[in-house]
Amino acid sequence: MPETIDKSNQQAPKFGSVFTDHMLRMEYDGERGGWQQPEITKMENISLHPAARVLHYATTLFEGMKAFRGVDGKIRLFRPLLNLQRLNQSAERACLPKVNKHDLLRHIEKLIRLDENFIPFTKEGSLYIRPTLIGTDAQIGVGVPNRALLFVILSPTASYFDSGSKPLRLMADPNYVRAWIGGAGDRKIGSNYGPTIYVQAKAQMYGCQQALWLYGEDEQITEAGTMAIFAHFINDKGERELRTAPLNGLILPSITRRSILELSREWNEFNVVEDKFTMSDLIRLRQENRLLELFGAGTACLISPVSEIFYRNRIIRLPTKDHPNPLYSRFYKSLNDIYYGRVNHPWGYEVGVADYSIDFDVEAASIL
Amino acid sequence: MPETIDKSNQQAPKFGSVFTDHMLRMEYDGERGGWQQPEITKMENISLHPAARVLHYATTLFEGMKAFRGVDGKIRLFRPLLNLQRLNQSAERACLPKVNKHDLLRHIEKLIRLDENFIPFTKEGSLYIRPTLIGTDAQIGVGVPNRALLFVILSPTASYFDSGSKPLRLMADPNYVRAWIGGAGDRKIGSNYGPTIYVQAKAQMYGCQQALWLYGEDEQITEAGTMAIFAHFINDKGERELRTAPLNGLILPSITRRSILELSREWNEFNVVEDKFTMSDLIRLRQENRLLELFGAGTACLISPVSEIFYRNRIIRLPTKDHPNPLYSRFYKSLNDIYYGRVNHPWGYEVGVADYSIDFDVEAASIL
Repeated sequence: MPETIDKSNQQAPKFGSVFTDHMLRMEYDGERGGWQQPEITKMENISLHPAARVLHYATTLFEGMKAFRGVDGKIRLFRPLLNLQRLNQSAERACLPKVNKHDLLRHIEKLIRLDENFIPFTKEGSLYIRPTLIGTDAQIGVGVPNRALLFVILSPTASYFDSGSKPLRLMADPNYVRAWIGGAGDRKIGSNYGPTIYVQAKAQMYGCQQALWLYGEDEQITEAGTMAIFAHFINDKGERELRTAPLNGLILPSITRRSILELSREWNEFNVVEDKFTMSDLIRLRQENRLLELFGAGTACLISPVSEIFYRNRIIRLPTKDHPNPLYSRFYKSLNDIYYGRVNHPWGYEVGVADYSIDFDVEAASIL
Repeated sequence: MPETIDKSNQQAPKFGSVFTDHMLRMEYDGERGGWQQPEITKMENISLHPAARVLHYATTLFEGMKAFRGVDGKIRLFRPLLNLQRLNQSAERACLPKVNKHDLLRHIEKLIRLDENFIPFTKEGSLYIRPTLIGTDAQIGVGVPNRALLFVILSPTASYFDSGSKPLRLMADPNYVRAWIGGAGDRKIGSNYGPTIYVQAKAQMYGCQQALWLYGEDEQITEAGTMAIFAHFINDKGERELRTAPLNGLILPSITRRSILELSREWNEFNVVEDKFTMSDLIRLRQENRLLELFGAGTACLISPVSEIFYRNRIIRLPTKDHPNPLYSRFYKSLNDIYYGRVNHPWGYEVGVADYSIDFDVEAASIL
């Protein structure tokens, strides 16, 4: 029986370590017409044949979304169809079956409604939603899966980092490369995470929370462990610029990244650039006092200011926290206002507004 | 209940699709002193928490070995400690716990002895042995596993390819890159296989059995889907040369590759080179009638001659099968003589020679 939390405990625990009472499961069987009926079951272990492809060949992909308890009591997701569209892009590359994203969203909403008491009542808490799709055929030849399992689990959460909202220190080590042209670094598949754990552990040895991934001889800053990376600086024309790495196959197409770019372009107050940004750019801008901020952005970690980079055996201090009116906190506030329903915005997707005339029999094995 | 085969059926089935009656399991728990007692159990499903790291972050590695029924009735493995040493190298990179390789080998031998009736009596059959190590903590933060499961399953097998021993056609597409400097392409971890399935499927669309992986602007031939690649040719000095890609981080350190190199150096009849070999080298040598053979080598596929490469929308025909006395078949024979005990060689490791005074109670949940 998996661990669950006491619903009365509204202090959200360490990220991703406790789960709600229920889960969503949907099986795919190529020999039985594809996707089978989804089920909401109690949170319970998954039984896999020891030859299941996921256990050998990393035939897995996932998504990360959050449900927020709004100031108006309503529960909201943030642009959930973008996540499910990305799930299908990952599925294509992983040779796993695609889903109907509208149907899947409807089922995820039912699961959230069922376990909605787990959504923290705290100002910064949320319910992390983890859809996962794995290849399950009992076949250890390397090949295309014909059986798969999609499941969705929920985990109440406060902050991604143990450091809370304190600024981050990242390790930039050019000896480790996350992704490369001709690979699959732009899909949210398990294979992009497995090899990073070693580097992440090394980063932690140096007191860093995550790795800052560099690419190429010019040491392009691509992304961090679980975040897109943004630099805010005064460019060579003397203008303010917000820059992040382009979607060229090397980085994950983060939905928080996209939202920050879209908000920035709507505000139209500074230059917004998706282009290369190298370690030497960073160092030069900082030396010339033109670097204003560096921050990470992602669903799990939200917006996280970066104050130090450990690079070639020295620590580069960044002025991110010195800025009197930083962009990162403006993005944080803007997104939070949408997450928690303080503003009415199309990106805030209200859960359960569609008509779900369904009997939530929590004891039944299947209620969909 | 997983599928098993009728023991009376000595026709070995398609690679990796049927399994023997038993499996070996050993759990690791960082909070209970590390590795727990190994168990041999019936072949049965594995129960995992839905947040188990392997299902999300590809925290998995594996090995591939074979047990052969010798002409003298003895059962042999081929250099098994090299596999278990490589398993530990993979574990290091995957942040999974290392094993005591001598102890593990002893337990694998017990498993093989218990299910030895499954080893095909055919001249080319074998029992494929798949040790697998997965991260099992119920924790969806990206981090170092504290719990793991090692399991070993056995699968009787004849030939890896459906084409049997017919020569292979490989797809060489520079748009797909398997591994890169700064990555983890030299470890046998799941993450190196997941993203290749898509490319493998594309190869099959073109009537190819596997992908031939190229690297860099000069299109270095690194390895194929599940094989090291060797070229046998007349070099610029007019001498015979056997060449394969170097162990520079881009290829898996194949034990069959190593054995071929060691045999070749022992024979001392031709140049043996571990160095770059590019697509343009291949094409030039072939045009000048200096290419003699191209072949793959690996535990699962043994020695497989390559007769065609699909490259930039055309098929390059190779003379591999025209050679009257090809090296590939000499390696095949030499290795087979060791596998099946036709010669006495230190690489042939006889199973169960150590004193195993143990009661093989096949019904007991644990017999170790």
